[in-house]
Amino acid sequence: MRALIVRDGQLTFVADHARPDPPPGEALIRVARAGICNTDLEIVKGYFGFRGVLGHEFVGVVEALNPLPSQTPHIQVGDRVVGEINCVPCDSPACTAAQRAQSPDRTTLGIAGRDGAFADYTILPIVNLHRVPDQIGDDEAVFVEPLAAACQVLEQVHIRPTDRVAVLGDGKLGLLCAQVIAAGAPCALTVIGKHAGKLGLAHQWGLRTAYVDEAPLRAFDVVVECTGSPAGFEHARQLLRPRGTLVLKSTYHGLPQVNLTMVVVDEITVVGSRCGPFEAALRLLAQQRVDVCSLIHARYPLEQGELAFEHAQRAGVLKVLLTVDGG
Amino acid sequence: MRALIVRDGQLTFVADHARPDPPPGEALIRVARAGICNTDLEIVKGYFGFRGVLGHEFVGVVEALNPLPSQTPHIQVGDRVVGEINCVPCDSPACTAAQRAQSPDRTTLGIAGRDGAFADYTILPIVNLHRVPDQIGDDEAVFVEPLAAACQVLEQVHIRPTDRVAVLGDGKLGLLCAQVIAAGAPCALTVIGKHAGKLGLAHQWGLRTAYVDEAPLRAFDVVVECTGSPAGFEHARQLLRPRGTLVLKSTYHGLPQVNLTMVVVDEITVVGSRCGPFEAALRLLAQQRVDVCSLIHARYPLEQGELAFEHAQRAGVLKVLLTVDGG
Repeated sequence: MRALIVRDGQLTFVADHARPDPPPGEALIRVARAGICNTDLEIVKGYFGFRGVLGHEFVGVVEALNPLPSQTPHIQVGDRVVGEINCVPCDSPACTAAQRAQSPDRTTLGIAGRDGAFADYTILPIVNLHRVPDQIGDDEAVFVEPLAAACQVLEQVHIRPTDRVAVLGDGKLGLLCAQVIAAGAPCALTVIGKHAGKLGLAHQWGLRTAYVDEAPLRAFDVVVECTGSPAGFEHARQLLRPRGTLVLKSTYHGLPQVNLTMVVVDEITVVGSRCGPFEAALRLLAQQRVDVCSLIHARYPLEQGELAFEHAQRAGVLKVLLTVDGG
Repeated sequence: MRALIVRDGQLTFVADHARPDPPPGEALIRVARAGICNTDLEIVKGYFGFRGVLGHEFVGVVEALNPLPSQTPHIQVGDRVVGEINCVPCDSPACTAAQRAQSPDRTTLGIAGRDGAFADYTILPIVNLHRVPDQIGDDEAVFVEPLAAACQVLEQVHIRPTDRVAVLGDGKLGLLCAQVIAAGAPCALTVIGKHAGKLGLAHQWGLRTAYVDEAPLRAFDVVVECTGSPAGFEHARQLLRPRGTLVLKSTYHGLPQVNLTMVVVDEITVVGSRCGPFEAALRLLAQQRVDVCSLIHARYPLEQGELAFEHAQRAGVLKVLLTVDGG
């Protein structure tokens, strides 16, 4: 099968990669469409030390199921599915998605210890799969994984109707978090960014926007840090009122210097936030409460994966899709 | 009056400092006993940039009250009192202690913008004062302020009976936090430190103890960081299980480098924690549920303040008291 492979920080298209065979408890999925995430860009730069088939945002069709003897699958061959990326051995007691996401035994699709979805076929545990309702198109379904990560903010933090909330960062993650928060809580929400075009999108959705240098300091109850830049943490802290909550979605290269003393003095709560609930993301898409299609800036066939990655790294570019099944 | 003054990182005993005059809403207190805190040591090193009478841990007797016309004081002249250290203007809407502690208008006794208690007399807003029950001695009452700060951990974090909790650091703050947590929650508590003598004290109180290099990593639901050393934050993070809670009591010089990416990957919650509820601390002392007297390592008269500070800075030394009234 065709696949985009990363090896020693080098991305390569391979035409004849071996098709994976689902072990007991897993499913074989024919990939239809996949999305390039910032994590993929970082993996290609050598971050994470991952080797293998890249990709963890996808939608596809179940081609084969290899259930455990004890297992009655909740999906069938032919179902269109998306998949949670954190996988645990099928005999692991970590049975909920939230437990799998933090299991010490986990492998992660296209990120750690498990081949990913930038290929004609991928495999995942059956329990990780979610059927995609018909009214959600393939383009939208590709966003379920990052949208679920955005929903994790609401899962971890109680956002009150009276809260002043800022999303710091107008990239893909920031724009998804902003939409999810707007859909999930009737709070006073501001998207803070640097890019007129991206902030314009937020404005189009009816969200209040501000440029980073004009956002008022010590004025927000909750700040969701989505910049991906180490300076973002300090700025997020300064935007918060005392006793506010900083939700940290960004991961950073290296070890940023942090004013922990001010975290104590202001009694700030910092909440690290990663993967989230797929069903919530599917509901938001099915109910058309979020607009993900406006984030799509380009599409490339799998063979042109290297071009797609170059495009995805350009300034101002949001989501780049790989149309694996030619659709 | 006599006073210990700090000026440009220099501590000086002054025999003839002007006695403060309580403005409307404030009380004049004759100081009986005071305690030297790590913050005092840091102020003397030039940290905070504070100038004036040092000291914020004290017990004393109300000498005069100057209530506002609208105010009926809850205390009387002659009452033995302790005082919350964060003060707001008497017309401020920040009326609860928790609000005062984070008010942007606040001054802080002997720390910021307000003379402290290492003197014969000090002044504080009447609303900041708490009467000390007779069964609590002066030595114990001096500990109300830091004990309240330890109680703030229970105020901010729900510690469950099933939680595995670690207090990291066996200094004054760590030993107070450990006792408060043990008194407040029937959890599995471990005090982690470096000093046989201090850990021995925790052991004497019936607490489980461990040396820093033997404490199991990723094994605690809640870690309370009390080391005061920047390396403490990273160690605390490593002690936590995924989705655990790191309560940050320490403040640090400079800007420590922090692995924020692991905060995200492990979805850790960091809770900055500072001043706390005085009434809870007074209840713990009145009910003899904590032992603070074992922390007292030395006493000095106010005139020997400089010697007292030298003593307080020595390795292994816990609390040094100033016996202001000669008691």
